[in-house]
Order: sequence, then structure tokens, then C-alpha cells
Amino acid sequence: MTSCVAPVFNPFTLTLVQLGSTGSDKAANLQHAHEMVMKAAKSGSGTKPQVIVLPECFNSPYGYVHFPTYAENIGYTPGEEYDIQTSVSESVKMLSSAAKEAGVWLVGGSIPERDEETNKVYNTCTVYSPTGALVALHRKVHLFDIDIPGKITFKVRHFYPALALPALIVSAGERDAHWRRYNKLFRHWYEPRRLIALHSIKHSPEFARIGLGICYDVRFQELAMISARQGCHVVVYPGAFNLTTGPLHWELLQRARAVDNQIFFSMCSPARDMTAGYHAWGHSMVVDPYGKVLVEADESEMIVHANIDPEPLQSVRAGIPVTKQRRFDVYPNVSAGK
Amino acid sequence: MTSCVAPVFNPFTLTLVQLGSTGSDKAANLQHAHEMVMKAAKSGSGTKPQVIVLPECFNSPYGYVHFPTYAENIGYTPGEEYDIQTSVSESVKMLSSAAKEAGVWLVGGSIPERDEETNKVYNTCTVYSPTGALVALHRKVHLFDIDIPGKITFKVRHFYPALALPALIVSAGERDAHWRRYNKLFRHWYEPRRLIALHSIKHSPEFARIGLGICYDVRFQELAMISARQGCHVVVYPGAFNLTTGPLHWELLQRARAVDNQIFFSMCSPARDMTAGYHAWGHSMVVDPYGKVLVEADESEMIVHANIDPEPLQSVRAGIPVTKQRRFDVYPNVSAGK
Repeated sequence: MTSCVAPVFNPFTLTLVQLGSTGSDKAANLQHAHEMVMKAAKSGSGTKPQVIVLPECFNSPYGYVHFPTYAENIGYTPGEEYDIQTSVSESVKMLSSAAKEAGVWLVGGSIPERDEETNKVYNTCTVYSPTGALVALHRKVHLFDIDIPGKITFKVRHFYPALALPALIVSAGERDAHWRRYNKLFRHWYEPRRLIALHSIKHSPEFARIGLGICYDVRFQELAMISARQGCHVVVYPGAFNLTTGPLHWELLQRARAVDNQIFFSMCSPARDMTAGYHAWGHSMVVDPYGKVLVEADESEMIVHANIDPEPLQSVRAGIPVTKQRRFDVYPNVSAGK
Repeated sequence: MTSCVAPVFNPFTLTLVQLGSTGSDKAANLQHAHEMVMKAAKSGSGTKPQVIVLPECFNSPYGYVHFPTYAENIGYTPGEEYDIQTSVSESVKMLSSAAKEAGVWLVGGSIPERDEETNKVYNTCTVYSPTGALVALHRKVHLFDIDIPGKITFKVRHFYPALALPALIVSAGERDAHWRRYNKLFRHWYEPRRLIALHSIKHSPEFARIGLGICYDVRFQELAMISARQGCHVVVYPGAFNLTTGPLHWELLQRARAVDNQIFFSMCSPARDMTAGYHAWGHSMVVDPYGKVLVEADESEMIVHANIDPEPLQSVRAGIPVTKQRRFDVYPNVSAGK
């Protein structure tokens, strides 16, 4: 067996909010994000969105000098119930209420998170169920640290990388038999060399298994390989490429991750704001397992919807059966841990 | 350290021969391939080609029913001198003489190879130095076995997959200090779970380290990851996509392997022949480490040249330093063996 097969995959609508108007006023950023989630929930053409995604760093200007100022303590432990009411994170509270009010699964982009114990700051994606429960959290594993002379220089010295692999949102049918199979893989997520973070035992989407990553993680093939081999049908990375890396690699990397792993792959960007310190590429998109771009935004604030249909995933895996032909007799399986 | 750095990388010209006129007459196929290598060696615009590449299965019609008939015993053992004079492989003899006559490194596409001891047939790429020495051999690791209903069905039941990882052609400066570092990795190549095949200790190109794979191997990310992390600057896969998979993925996969690994990546196809049983996509190409297509053939028989310049490899690795930022503390390094 070269990959596991998650038991449930039914069609759903994946909606990306390419958020604009993110400035220095955090309260205004949160209010606008909330409004846009509500708008997205009502804007589907036909079917109601089941999963809505926000972009990377949506509560803060994009730049390492801002992150410590905007960072919030979240205090989430995978596998344990999280009490939204007593949370000190205003972003978590807004996201929870937006998910509940809209009745959707909400991949809450990312925010700077300060770990209360260590005072380290992480770039963190949180996910909410339609009841408003915080069900998964992914800290960016690979920190963006780029220097193309004369074009773009961006350092993330105030961030710390996560010590864990991507979070997966397990789907409903897995609570029983499947969960038992993976239970042994569950490790406390601050531990390095941990195998995988599986979240959402009690709160699970009924339609698919979804994997998470953040932006620069997409350049490191292993993360998407792990998510796909742990059964994810769809992998979502909030991200913010720029005007140098965007035209070079934004579409290519998403199509590559989708085709290599025969999954749906999506990145959700902020809208472009040429008055901001960081100029995001935009072009939020969803790619199918054949590498076809299903939807793509331009650079402005906008909402795009993709119908996630299991058919292309099933047909490409049957037609080009790479998921069954890997040679783990001659190279290691990166999803099997260390 | 997340990847090793090969010590020598100087500019050179990489030349692809998108060979046509491959029919059922093996002697004619070999003669035509020889002529085209000679033509390619003389056709560079300015600099003389240093490396010439032929396509997959150039001595045989492309189809599993043909492979056993056209298979040849080669009898090469990595690390040992190979006597061309006593070889019973007419394809090896032709390729050796063509490399010597043209004074080039020749990546001899692939041919069906029959292992004398086991009678198994492999899809095998051989490489020759400008003196005509057989210096490296790669057996296809992943066998193409595809079934897209109504479009393309192709099975490779008469082939056996290699039990080894890709061969690397080590470059000249590595004979001394670098070779000692890798010497312990050298394993007999019929053994499964072998780490890596390093060839050409005595005969080495002066300009670069080159990795090999064949066609369908490109869909399995691990092979190119291993070659790149073992220090290859350029990875070459003879290949033959078809009219279904070609437009879908031929360019995407090469650009993905190049960008993911920050290397030059190239696949050399046969020309398209609509009278043959298998219709090759053509479009042989060379992609640089930024993902830019440097040269691309159309579908006809033709020769294309690419200037391999170290600058883009060095600048992309400095600007987007993924080769230094991999997280082997949280996932295994596929190039470290099992």
C-alpha cells in the first residue's frame, strides 16, 4: 500500500475569499473579514459553500515587523475541546462566530500566534466547524526567507517555524475504524519528529479529508505528499506570493502539487494593495487532480467558488495509477515518519 | 545540510535528438540514430555540444509486444570497466562508437535490456564518455501502466522494474575528496533498498553532475529529489509521453521537477509518427531551475540545443533558499536511503 484511502469523499463547494482592505487597524481587519465570510456564504452559484478559506495573515499588515504586535495567544491543543468563550484571541473569536453564523467550515487563513509559554511567534492557520468549534491548527513549517536582488527581499526573523507536520482534518466516516488506525500516529504537536497531526475527531466534515499548509510550505514537496498519502482529497494553503514569485511559480507549484499527488490543491491569497508594504500576487485558485485550474481570481478583492467533484480524482488515479506504483522498496515513504 | 553540493559546474551545451523514423528494422534504427548523433554534434550554434541525448526506446517500436524481441544483453556492472569490444549488444556498440566519433557525452536514450541471468527485460538507459566508454546505466524504476478509457491504454507487463535508484554521473572534481565521501554509498545495483548508484569514477564529465531517469519516473517526485540532493545540476530523462498525457503533463512535470529541486531538467522524446502503434508527444525540452523552458522541439524529427549556464541555478538557490530550509527534523530525507 502506497497511500491510505479516506473513506468519505462527496462533492462540495470550496470558496476562496481573496480579502482586501487589510490595514493597520486590527479590529477593522477582523470586521471586514467577518463581512466577507458572510458575503461568501451567500454568494455561491447554486449550491451553498461548505468550506470557505481566508488568506494568509489577514488580521495584520504583511511584514515581519508587524507580526509580534498583532500576535495573539490561542492555546489550542489538538484532540482537546477548545473553549471559544474563554479564548483571549479576538481573531479566533471572530472566526468561530463567522463559521457558526455562516454555517460553514472555515479555514481561517493565518494569523501571527504567540505561544504563551515560550513567547515564540508562529504563522498559524486555524479551522472551524459550522458549529463554531476550533477543530484544527497548522503552524507554518517552512519560513519564507527570500532575497532576489533588485526584486524582492523578505525575511521572517521574528517568526519561528512549527516543529510539526501539516494538520489534516479527518472526515466523518473516519471517527470509528479509521480513527483507530491513526490513533497511534497522534502525537503532541510541539514535539519534533512527530508523525502527523490529525485533528477534529469530534467535529468532522461529512464530505472529505482536507490537509493544511501555509504559503512557502508549497515549495517543499514533502508536506503535500504527506497530506495526500494520509488520505487527503483536498489540500488548502492560505498564501501570499508577491509580484516576483507570483508570476514565476504561483500557478506552477499548485498544479504540480495537484498532479504529483492526484489531489485538489488550492491557495488563497490576499488581494493586491499597491499602497501596502507587501504586494500580494492575488490569483487565488483551485486546481483539480489533472492539473486543470478550476477557478482563478484576478488581483482584486473577490470571492471565487469551485465545485469539488470526486470524479477527476478517482479517474486520474485509475488511469495513471501512481498512488499504487510508488517504490517504497527503493526509497523511503516520507509520510511514514522518521 | 539538506543537500550536497557537487564541486564542479561549468557551462556546457546540452543537445536533444528528437529522433524519428524508428521502425521495425533494428539495424536501420541504429544506423539512423548514429547519423543523427553525428548531425547533432556538428549542428550547435556556436559552441560544440558536450552532451547529446537520444529518446526512450530508440532501437525498437514502442510497445510491450516488441520489447522482448528487441532486447539485448548488456552485462554492465557499475564501477567496473566495461569492454565494448566483447559486448554482445549491437546498440551499445553503436552508441559507444557514435560517442567516440562525435567526441561527446552520449545519454543513449533507452533500449530493452535482457538480463542474461534472470531473463528479465528492463527499460535501460546507458551513457557513454567521449572516449566511447560505457560509464553509467539506469534501469527504469517505475513502469508505465496507464489506462484512460477511450483515450490511451498501455501496459508494460513484459518489463520488469529496476530494483535500484537513479544513476548519477559524477563529475570530474569528485574523483578525489568527493568520491571518498560517497564511496560508502556505492552498492551493487541489483540489491533493493540500495542507496544510490554512482557511476563513472574513471570517466567523468568535466562540467557537471548529471542524474538519470526514464519517462514515467518523472511522475514519482522522489527520483528527481534524490538526484538533486545528491548534487546533480542537470537531470535528464529520455521519455515518450503520448497525445493524451503529453498535452496534460509533459511540460508541467518537467517545470515542476526543475523548480522543486532547483535544477535543470530535460526530457528527450521520439518524434511523432502517426503511422506507428504509439504516438509520441514530441516537444523535447530543457527547463532551467526557475522553471523557464529554454528550448522546446515541436513534434517532428529535430535537434535542439540548450546552453546550460550555472548562473540561474546559483541565483535561484541564493534567492529562494529551499535547499537549505528543508525540515528533515520533521520528515525523512528521501535521499538518505532507507
